Amino acid sequence: MNKNQDERIAVAGRIYDLDSEVCRILGTRLSRVFNGSRDATIRELAELMTTRTTGHLLRSELAMISNMARTIPEKEARAKVMTEYNEILHLVEKIPTSFGTVDILDENIAKLNAANLSGRFAEGNHFIVCIGRSYGSAGTDIGFALADKLKINYYDTEIFVEVMERLEAGQDELEDRASFAHHQNLNQNLGLERNRTIRQRIKEFNRYHGLPKEDAVFFNQSDLLRDMAQKEDFIVMGRCADVILSNLHIPHISIFINAPFELRARRVMSTDNLSYKEAVKLLHRLDRRHSHYYEYYTGREWGNSINYDLCINSASYGIDGSVELILRIINQHTNHNIGNQK
Amino acid sequence: MNKNQDERIAVAGRIYDLDSEVCRILGTRLSRVFNGSRDATIRELAELMTTRTTGHLLRSELAMISNMARTIPEKEARAKVMTEYNEILHLVEKIPTSFGTVDILDENIAKLNAANLSGRFAEGNHFIVCIGRSYGSAGTDIGFALADKLKINYYDTEIFVEVMERLEAGQDELEDRASFAHHQNLNQNLGLERNRTIRQRIKEFNRYHGLPKEDAVFFNQSDLLRDMAQKEDFIVMGRCADVILSNLHIPHISIFINAPFELRARRVMSTDNLSYKEAVKLLHRLDRRHSHYYEYYTGREWGNSINYDLCINSASYGIDGSVELILRIINQHTNHNIGNQK
Repeated sequence: MNKNQDERIAVAGRIYDLDSEVCRILGTRLSRVFNGSRDATIRELAELMTTRTTGHLLRSELAMISNMARTIPEKEARAKVMTEYNEILHLVEKIPTSFGTVDILDENIAKLNAANLSGRFAEGNHFIVCIGRSYGSAGTDIGFALADKLKINYYDTEIFVEVMERLEAGQDELEDRASFAHHQNLNQNLGLERNRTIRQRIKEFNRYHGLPKEDAVFFNQSDLLRDMAQKEDFIVMGRCADVILSNLHIPHISIFINAPFELRARRVMSTDNLSYKEAVKLLHRLDRRHSHYYEYYTGREWGNSINYDLCINSASYGIDGSVELILRIINQHTNHNIGNQK
Repeated sequence: MNKNQDERIAVAGRIYDLDSEVCRILGTRLSRVFNGSRDATIRELAELMTTRTTGHLLRSELAMISNMARTIPEKEARAKVMTEYNEILHLVEKIPTSFGTVDILDENIAKLNAANLSGRFAEGNHFIVCIGRSYGSAGTDIGFALADKLKINYYDTEIFVEVMERLEAGQDELEDRASFAHHQNLNQNLGLERNRTIRQRIKEFNRYHGLPKEDAVFFNQSDLLRDMAQKEDFIVMGRCADVILSNLHIPHISIFINAPFELRARRVMSTDNLSYKEAVKLLHRLDRRHSHYYEYYTGREWGNSINYDLCINSASYGIDGSVELILRIINQHTNHNIGNQK
């Protein structure tokens, strides 16, 4: 019998005795977790500690004992038992083949997750929050309110396109446009529309160096995001910004905001003056488009929780509640001096 | 022209002038958001305020102005402009047909969401966290560590089944079982296994009053959860507890923990001593089973973010980081005296 086995036997003995003690104090055999003989039980418990595969069973046993122990009415007796429990727990966790010893943390993801970086978020990095959302979930309202609270810049599709057009056009061409009414069409310009005239297509071909317009916009966007990340804190809505920044190895927090379909439909009826039927149709169409766009450019599933640091159900919190929730998470998560970079 | 229209025109005028001012201070026409004539622009801006449908465009315009304004180097000039911006923002938000006026909060969901309840979480209610998770995402480790930190009870499948069997069997029968080795099979007892012998089926039929065993277990579980919610704070893993508690109108927080498939597979190789191929196979099988179980009893999609208050990607935070994140969210979210109910 080697040293490790001796340790396991010793811990197993303490577990068995703790169970007996809790049961003795409570005065009922019903509360007893182990009903077998001391020797046989200790052997089995020690066995559970030799392989991680059975680690969760040991954890359940321990949890049952502590659940019972917490029902002990006398404070002093309870405290004594819980102290022994905690000591045992720490001993068990130190056994390398026990539970809790294999983390799920992915260094590559974590390094880019600004919400996890109190220490790692370098002074030179700007604070960036990427928010994806389904239409009607009030995600845009939440993002806008958040930017306002943090006093940092806010970018959505309209602004992105405008900024890119300005960068491209320079000042001269700007004079041509007498109003901002063209904004009305920007949203759809970024979609994957296929019904353009041949004339338009040729013009775009020349303008975007042979790339399809959507792709050119997407790549320009990536460049723009990288430049922005070097000079300012900001919140960016949609645009696959989370994946773009991950690929560029730029730290950020990625959040997806969603709400149950019926609630989104009800809200869209109100925000967009639609009938229920129209709202449902619109949501289905936009969900398809969002999903298509995200998958096309990132190869990932839109809205799937594994692609974001955090998913929030806005129906559980409302607009203000969601903003508060995010503020709580990020303010305590970073030592970064948000919004005071100038 | 009515009073509302006058107000909209007045606010629109201030927006136009703010843009001019920011542009004047920065000394470049490129920073200008509006390039049209003052009158035409004001008319269009006022028009955007008359319907929520175009509200997001107005928001983008305002965001662009404030993004520009924040680049003003002189602190005093910047502060003056930002004050005007904030005043305008508040005026716009007060217009009933503007953006930000339709919330997504669902009173019925929110009422049950303990993470949103600093005020509403009644003194008599116990603190309950329901954690769903995919296998290999370390969700169980996170739940167990969280219970330990909060000093509240922890329930997983094994414990649930054990508690129910004890309640059913009473003390006498307990003596029959000389060990806890039967736990090894408990997991699969709760699955929707179909390959039982006729003899077993008849026995179960009598035992569960004609209900299929899984259904009987499920309904007993619901009763147990209701009883528990009346007397203790706890964390419960899986078991559709979130939906059961919602249906019983018992406040709780529901969290889903997930991680990218590849990372889960890698972790399962280590925790369960499996080859990569075996790990992938196991995950596919368990995901199907979890998904099937959840959908069968709740009619909802397992792991879809709209069914939880919050989804956490454990790969972004690791076990300790996830526990810390949840602690941060709930500690500040409730005035409830967690873990000190006795």
